[in-house]
Formats: sequence, C-alpha cells, structure tokens
Amino acid sequence: MKKESTHPPIISWEGQAVGLLDQTLLPHEEKFILCDTLPALWEAIKSLRVRGAPAIGVSAAYGVVLAAELCRTMDPDVFAREVHEGIDYLATSRPTAVNLFWALERMRGCLDSMAGSGVAQQKAHLLEEARRIEAENNQVCETLSEAGANLLKDGFRVITHCNAGGLACGNFYGTALGVILKASEQGKRISVYADETRPLLQGSRLTAYELHKAGVPVTLLCDNMAGHVMRTIGVDAVIFGADRIAANGDTANKIGSYSLSVLAREHGVPVYVAAPLSTVDFTLSSGELIPIEVRNSAEVAGFAGIRTAPEGVEVYNPAFDVTPARYITAIITEAGVLYPPFEKSLGRLAPGYSTVS
Amino acid sequence: MKKESTHPPIISWEGQAVGLLDQTLLPHEEKFILCDTLPALWEAIKSLRVRGAPAIGVSAAYGVVLAAELCRTMDPDVFAREVHEGIDYLATSRPTAVNLFWALERMRGCLDSMAGSGVAQQKAHLLEEARRIEAENNQVCETLSEAGANLLKDGFRVITHCNAGGLACGNFYGTALGVILKASEQGKRISVYADETRPLLQGSRLTAYELHKAGVPVTLLCDNMAGHVMRTIGVDAVIFGADRIAANGDTANKIGSYSLSVLAREHGVPVYVAAPLSTVDFTLSSGELIPIEVRNSAEVAGFAGIRTAPEGVEVYNPAFDVTPARYITAIITEAGVLYPPFEKSLGRLAPGYSTVS
Repeated sequence: MKKESTHPPIISWEGQAVGLLDQTLLPHEEKFILCDTLPALWEAIKSLRVRGAPAIGVSAAYGVVLAAELCRTMDPDVFAREVHEGIDYLATSRPTAVNLFWALERMRGCLDSMAGSGVAQQKAHLLEEARRIEAENNQVCETLSEAGANLLKDGFRVITHCNAGGLACGNFYGTALGVILKASEQGKRISVYADETRPLLQGSRLTAYELHKAGVPVTLLCDNMAGHVMRTIGVDAVIFGADRIAANGDTANKIGSYSLSVLAREHGVPVYVAAPLSTVDFTLSSGELIPIEVRNSAEVAGFAGIRTAPEGVEVYNPAFDVTPARYITAIITEAGVLYPPFEKSLGRLAPGYSTVS
Repeated sequence: MKKESTHPPIISWEGQAVGLLDQTLLPHEEKFILCDTLPALWEAIKSLRVRGAPAIGVSAAYGVVLAAELCRTMDPDVFAREVHEGIDYLATSRPTAVNLFWALERMRGCLDSMAGSGVAQQKAHLLEEARRIEAENNQVCETLSEAGANLLKDGFRVITHCNAGGLACGNFYGTALGVILKASEQGKRISVYADETRPLLQGSRLTAYELHKAGVPVTLLCDNMAGHVMRTIGVDAVIFGADRIAANGDTANKIGSYSLSVLAREHGVPVYVAAPLSTVDFTLSSGELIPIEVRNSAEVAGFAGIRTAPEGVEVYNPAFDVTPARYITAIITEAGVLYPPFEKSLGRLAPGYSTVS
C-alpha cells in the first residue's frame, strides 16, 4: 500500500470560489468544479458532488469564507448580517450530517468574536478559521485511523458500507477507510468487501475506487450479499463512518448500515463506527431524535439515470438509518477507541464536561 | 384488485418453438420471443429472459417437446437418444432452481415410459406431459396462494424480495405474490414493500410492475432499506419464493433472502416461504448441499450495460443464498402451510413416504 494522494484535491479554497472534486462523476471522470456562488455550493452539497459528513463540514466552512468574499460592503454590521444569512442558507442544504452544522456554528462563533473589527480583518479571520477546521479535520482523521488500526488483525476480512474514505473527508485517510489504510500500512493483510450502497453507489463508485487505487484488496458486493458472505465465507469486522452520533452512541449513517449491523451481531462480527468527535451531537440523547433525510424517488426508481421501475410506482428513499448503540462494539474517534456504555465514554469528551463535577 | 391477466402470455408452446415473454425487457417493453432451437432456449434461461423456479420448470418441459420436434428421425431408438441429449443439455442452463431438473426428469420418465412406441406417438405424449406439467403448476400456484392467504390479516404490511409472482411461474398467481393477491381478493388491505433486488432488479422491474398492475399498493425499496423499515415503520410479514428447498427446510432463494430473514427474526416478523412441492429437493438433507450459482461480475459492476464500478475491481456475484430453516416460520405449499420441524412436515410429503413405515 502506497501512501500518496489517490485523486486530485477534494476540497480547496480557490480565492473567489470553493473548489470541489465532483464525486457524482467518479470513478469515470475526475472533474474539479468551482462553486463561486452560495447557491452553487448549496446545490453541490445537496446533490452529493461533495458528500461524507467531514467533507461537508469543511466545504461548508469554506462556504462561509465564500459568503464573506461575496460581500461588497465595508460596513462591519452589514457584513456580519450578510454572512450570518449565508450560514443560515448553507445549513438548509442537508439535514442529517451534523458536521455541517458543527462547522457552520464554529464559523459563526468566529464571526461573532470579530464583531466590530473591520471587514477585511473579519474576512481574513474567517479564512484562517476555515483553514484551521480543514487542518484539524485532516489531523483528526489520521489520529483516529491510527487508533482504530489496532482493532484490525493480520488477515482480517472487513465489510464496509458506503464511503467513509478520503473522499468523504477531504483528505487522504478518511475515517472507516483510514482505519483500513493504517492497518495495511502496518503490514497487515486486510481485505475488504465493499457494499455497493444503493441507490447512489458510493461503495462501488468511491470506496472500491479508493481502495483499488491504494492497493488494498477489495471485492465489490451488492448490499443484499453481506449476510451470505458472513455466513458462508466469514467476516472479521464491519466498519463504517457516521453522519451523526447521539450522546448515547446511536449512530446515523448511510441507509443499510443498520441492516449490516444486525447481520454482524447475528454472526458474532464486531461493528466499529469510525468518526471524528465533531460528528457527535451531544444535544441529542438518542438516535431517535436524529432527522433522517428522505431523498427523491428517482434515485431508487432508476440506476445511473436509466429508469428501471415501472412508471407510477411509489418509492421510499430514506438516505440514512440509525443503528442503535447496542449493535455497536466501539466508536473510533481521535480521542481513542470508545466502548459502551457510550453515554459515559462519549460523555467524558463532551464540551463542558468536567472531571470534578 | 382485478383478477385478470396482467401481461401477455409468459410461456407457451408455439408448435415449433417455445414462446417466452422476455422478462429482461420489462417493465418498459413487453416482447414475446420464439425459441426455435435448444441453444436459443438455453440462452433464454441462462440470461433470465425466463426466470423464477416454476417458470423455468415449465419452459424446460416445453424445451423437451422442442427437442423432440427438432428430431427428424423416424427411428424410436435414435429419437430417444437425441431427446435424452436435449434433456441433458437443458439441465446445464442454470444450477440452483431444482424445478428445472424436476421438470426435465419428469419429461425423461415420460420418454422412457414410451420406449418402443413410434416417434409420432412419443412426440404427442411428450407434448401432453408438458401441458400437464404446466396445468398442474397453474393449479398448484393457485392452491398454495389460497392456503397462504389465511396467514395475512387485514392491514398487513408485507416485504417481499425478488419476484415470485405470475412472471416467475408462468401463470396468474405465482407463489409469494399469489398469497398476497389471494389475500387482497379476500378484501384484506395488504400493502407491500418490494425490495428492488440487485443486481438484476427483479423486484423493481417485475414485482412492482405486477402488483401495481393488479392494484395492490406497493412501495419500492432498495435492498438495504428493509431493516430501517422494520425498525421504524413496522412490517407484519416477510414472504418470498424459493429456488430449492432441502429436506430439512433450508431454502435457497434469490440473494438477499437470507439477510432479510435475519432482519425479520430480529424484529419478530414471521418469514414465509411460498413454493410448490416441486421446489423441494428431498435428496438433499441440508441447504449446505444446494449448489449456488455465481454469475458474471458485470451484473454487479453496473446495470443495463452502464458500468458504475471502477475498472479492474474484483466482484462477487452469488445469485442465491440459503436461509437456514430456523429462520423460516412456515413453508406454504399446495399441500398446505407447513411448520417446523420441516424434516417431518415436509418428509410426510416426500415421494415414497408411507404412513405405515
């Protein structure tokens, strides 16, 4: 396994635009797009040109920088109001991944802390904060990947779902795939089964693409094959990312993660969730409170733009599901590998937690 | 729900050819093809132009009639040898659905019973036997549908996988969908979630098409959504067909049936298998002995000729899986609804079983 960039930059600030690798075109085309208006970036998030909870967070942070750059006023109050409006607007792009809101609120805090400063100074500080969010995100992904790698032993066969790789995080390692990459770098022979992940095939188009490029043995499966593989071939671990984790450890992730977790438990296979702490929503006591995005029916009624279902048939297309904490063996974070009860292991890491109280 | 043919004839003997509705083109095109050579019929079975265990059986029976018609000899011994060769050839088309072998062996028995008769007489008898297999299959599907309908109560929400409807059986009712249709005819409000069933989308293309035409409320799901639907909305029954059932009740069916069954048990949802007794392979003591067809990688790497996976990525494409009997609540057959232990309930129905022994 070679450690090198497996693709063009995923997210970058291009001076007057947010640059994004358009992930809807992968693996066949590597096209870098420039979002130079907030609606363009909103659409890119909504339509999954950039996707993956950490990557959405970093993109949104640069989106706030874009909102600031687009302000032509020199009045600090007008500027602050317009950037706040931009933040509110970007927050409406997708509902489930909490990193979006986390990054936007951090940018909002930066903005508020600069109240009264000149516009140029505020713009500079917002760009610094976005760059800090990106840099921290990169470090966090590498740290958690390293922490999780110890869970994977030589010869492990791992199933992953959707894409929680570099593409999902805007960096090299990603989260769930980072754990696999780090274990591979340690010389362990890890092989991966990648669920294709209908309807948008992030497993096929992105995970298989990333692992194949990185030289990690990967076998593509339809989502309905995981149980058969566990029962007849054997699997040693399930590992996936997260879009939002409640304070009790309940985890929202791409639709199908819950089914996979139930299958894993039935076969005695550990389930690992790999995610930065920015994915934990400490304000929600349970996963039942996580809003689940329901997307348009055409995604399910067709395949790669070809309509396959009969016209007029009803479709249900939830983009995420919630895996209750009782199915999760451990949550891999930059603060280490956390075990149940997650109320406690996560709670200790909550903002404002005091060991004295 | 109207009881009427929802599509053109599915399988018919056309004098010098086996006529088939090409199911690979549904739901967008209803094209009837004529297979006037054995290789054409073999290809039609192999490529799923005709599919579903009972429908494969009926098609193969007419395939033997075709093999007989294509014989130009008037020598009964040469005729018998050539038809036997035709039977052996058709048996190589697909490995898992036992109805193929069941129908071919029944036609072989008919042929052997006519040894020494004139060729014309043998041909006539083979056609009669194939017509009998078809008529019996139609009756069996209706009978088992009626038997199973009693298991579904008013207001039931049912998940089905792949297609076990009329298209899979060459008649109106089919098996799993027949149970749903009969319950609907009884005035019960049954609603159905149809798994799309990757890679070939029989659930989307065929099941949704059949139920929608029949006026039964149907909602299309990706295969990875069933667990989420069970957990958050609620499901009252899982029902699917079978390609081969071992003597102990272990059931081979379309890939994904096993995962669905595990999810059902986790949520306390009963799992019903609906299949004619011709699907039971009494020679196999366990499902571990059922050969599982592994199909080509292109089916998983894309759809309808559009490749979505990166080039060079390995693919695993088992077409079926085995659901161990312990996950199955009941098997619905033309002899009634059978409950565990299936060794006994099925065993009583085995050829040669004697109540005296």
